[in-house]
Amino acid sequence: MKRYEDLAPSLRCIMTPGPVEVDPRVLRAMSFPVLGQFDPEFTDIMNETMEMLRALFKTGNKWAFPVDGTSRSGIEAVMVSLIAPGDRVLIPIFGRFGHLLHEIAERCGAEVYTIEKEWGSVFAPEEVISAIRSIKPDVVAIVHGETSTGRMQPLAEIGQVCREQDALLIVDAVATIGGVPVETDEWLLDAVIGGTQKCLSIPSGMAPVTYNERAEAKLLKRKQVERGLRTGRFEAGELPPVRSNYFDLGMLQDYWSPQRLNHHTEMTSMLYALREGLRLVLEEGLEARHARHALHEQALVAGLAAMGLTLYGDPDCKLTVVACVQIPEGVDGESVRTMLLDHFGIEIASSFGPLKGKIWRIGTMGFSCRENNVLRVLGALEATLLRHGHSLSPGLSVQAALDVYEQKGR
Amino acid sequence: MKRYEDLAPSLRCIMTPGPVEVDPRVLRAMSFPVLGQFDPEFTDIMNETMEMLRALFKTGNKWAFPVDGTSRSGIEAVMVSLIAPGDRVLIPIFGRFGHLLHEIAERCGAEVYTIEKEWGSVFAPEEVISAIRSIKPDVVAIVHGETSTGRMQPLAEIGQVCREQDALLIVDAVATIGGVPVETDEWLLDAVIGGTQKCLSIPSGMAPVTYNERAEAKLLKRKQVERGLRTGRFEAGELPPVRSNYFDLGMLQDYWSPQRLNHHTEMTSMLYALREGLRLVLEEGLEARHARHALHEQALVAGLAAMGLTLYGDPDCKLTVVACVQIPEGVDGESVRTMLLDHFGIEIASSFGPLKGKIWRIGTMGFSCRENNVLRVLGALEATLLRHGHSLSPGLSVQAALDVYEQKGR
Repeated sequence: MKRYEDLAPSLRCIMTPGPVEVDPRVLRAMSFPVLGQFDPEFTDIMNETMEMLRALFKTGNKWAFPVDGTSRSGIEAVMVSLIAPGDRVLIPIFGRFGHLLHEIAERCGAEVYTIEKEWGSVFAPEEVISAIRSIKPDVVAIVHGETSTGRMQPLAEIGQVCREQDALLIVDAVATIGGVPVETDEWLLDAVIGGTQKCLSIPSGMAPVTYNERAEAKLLKRKQVERGLRTGRFEAGELPPVRSNYFDLGMLQDYWSPQRLNHHTEMTSMLYALREGLRLVLEEGLEARHARHALHEQALVAGLAAMGLTLYGDPDCKLTVVACVQIPEGVDGESVRTMLLDHFGIEIASSFGPLKGKIWRIGTMGFSCRENNVLRVLGALEATLLRHGHSLSPGLSVQAALDVYEQKGR
Repeated sequence: MKRYEDLAPSLRCIMTPGPVEVDPRVLRAMSFPVLGQFDPEFTDIMNETMEMLRALFKTGNKWAFPVDGTSRSGIEAVMVSLIAPGDRVLIPIFGRFGHLLHEIAERCGAEVYTIEKEWGSVFAPEEVISAIRSIKPDVVAIVHGETSTGRMQPLAEIGQVCREQDALLIVDAVATIGGVPVETDEWLLDAVIGGTQKCLSIPSGMAPVTYNERAEAKLLKRKQVERGLRTGRFEAGELPPVRSNYFDLGMLQDYWSPQRLNHHTEMTSMLYALREGLRLVLEEGLEARHARHALHEQALVAGLAAMGLTLYGDPDCKLTVVACVQIPEGVDGESVRTMLLDHFGIEIASSFGPLKGKIWRIGTMGFSCRENNVLRVLGALEATLLRHGHSLSPGLSVQAALDVYEQKGR
């Protein structure tokens, strides 16, 4: 029998758009012994987590709970539950994750309509609004923060039109939740999906979602009780049943309700992590947290500019939690990334599709988003670029970032 | 802002059929700082985990990896990927989780055929074989260990007939993997799903699966590359695409292959737990582990009998890792469970559907399956039954279990 070594992962400075570093207090939470899924102490933790998620999503919605899977499990759960086969679905696309929404909607059996914007920009609200008015979709699904291009889509004006047109508005806020404002109720968002491994700084593994009564009304038309748990006569809903058992929000909400109707076995240790991570977010305060993300972004961007690097994309819609940097002419982007990881222990990201090999993406998210990390990545990137024969004036970058910190306070 | 308390779950003795107690070494593994998903150190951990899963499943299959979700996510991933809409699917049902397979197959768009056996028993292999011969299904899906009734279905003879009939055989080994033999290759199982929170004693959150070339051949006919990652012209497969993005095994295997085609963000901390849990299982050795589970079951059953309690179901097909106990006449089963939890810190389970209120289920799984736990649950159950006015001869139960340990060694 082969012997496997003790687990001993290196300590990394993770400056990608996720997964990012995790606060030691969250890591510690996962090391607590587990409780049974129907232990009253555990269901209390479930209820507390729901309460904290409502605060995070800025919502009075009854339903706010994690789907047990990575971020895209939450997206798929919301989409497969709210899109009935044959529904007209509008997807405005301005990067890779818009294409993912398209792909998922297609697999849900939707009649998909897309509008596309050149990567690096976002839609003017009126462009989305006029598409909604002409296509008259049942569902609109849109990305809030597109990490593939580092852009953020303004959402505030879209919800009202969706209500007028009787469409449900689904928002992928995986990259933004906990880093920039996400105003579920104020923006009239019907369903929102957050991510854990980005600005919340909780390990990948849960996908917090929330949805309102408009969304729930549709779920109830597709409601099923699981075979094997049914008592009495079973009546089919008004709309076709959800094509997934695991992702059926109607079942998940019965499990997360006082009814506690058995579904999956809730991920105990991940829920401990989520609860602790949310506790830290709410302790810091959402506004303070957003301000922190903005500050460190400014310092990072100042440092990158002082190094002579150019940011990618339309600055007016830059997502604060990730900086997309054009890889300078003549520099091998992957070689730089490898040197950063192997010599400095720092991870930055590449990108996808048309941007592969063209940009680096440097995240300032959650627990990774702090002064010493920003200064460290700037210093290391400068040294690595010099080592790659790229010409720049040494020393300016870190100084520029320090200037920001000095002027703005920490 | 409401203040939330420090996480402080009580220490429980968990004697249910899952989730069960977790070895402190596995809990500790989750507290290590995270690595990025494409960090070479992390992809090494992914590869090692695949290797260990092959050993666990007793298979030479190329594909053995976890699906990122609770156990039923693995079941759904295998079913939605291997069942094309309109496929004929045979499900032999002998408890709740057979009904779950039925429900999932139905949601996959299958033409479902079921045969049912009274709860408490299992099928004779020839019953399943003759159903396969007459129904000629594309897929057969069956539960190996049915925790709702505590029964185990013999599987060894079914695989050969599936090959003759060109059907794929999917086995839900969620409850058995790591506790009793699961012979993927020897029994000719085409796809097997294991659970983490039962005999493997890893927190709920990952679903290890394996499948062979016969299964992969079907996946390849449904293969898609994700929108947003496609390069060049896209050709549709021979069979309809999988109805889920998250659960598309064709995509998952590209992510788990050296190609590392981006899909979800692998659950870092859960993978650390899975790797450590598997390491402990392989260190103990599968045979020794199965023998340990058998020993503690014997001691538990002897103790229950000495207390005058009656086991539920056909003893010939008893699942060794859970004992189903008839709740004595006049005793309130839920009141007993509550007293065990509140006064003794011990959790045992109730059951589902027709067995609700009729039986208790006492698990002896994984890390929970040890002498001190068995003796503790017997002593506490005896005291609790006495406290509930149930008449029994005190002291015999724990002595009977100790006798087993003395005779058989530990």
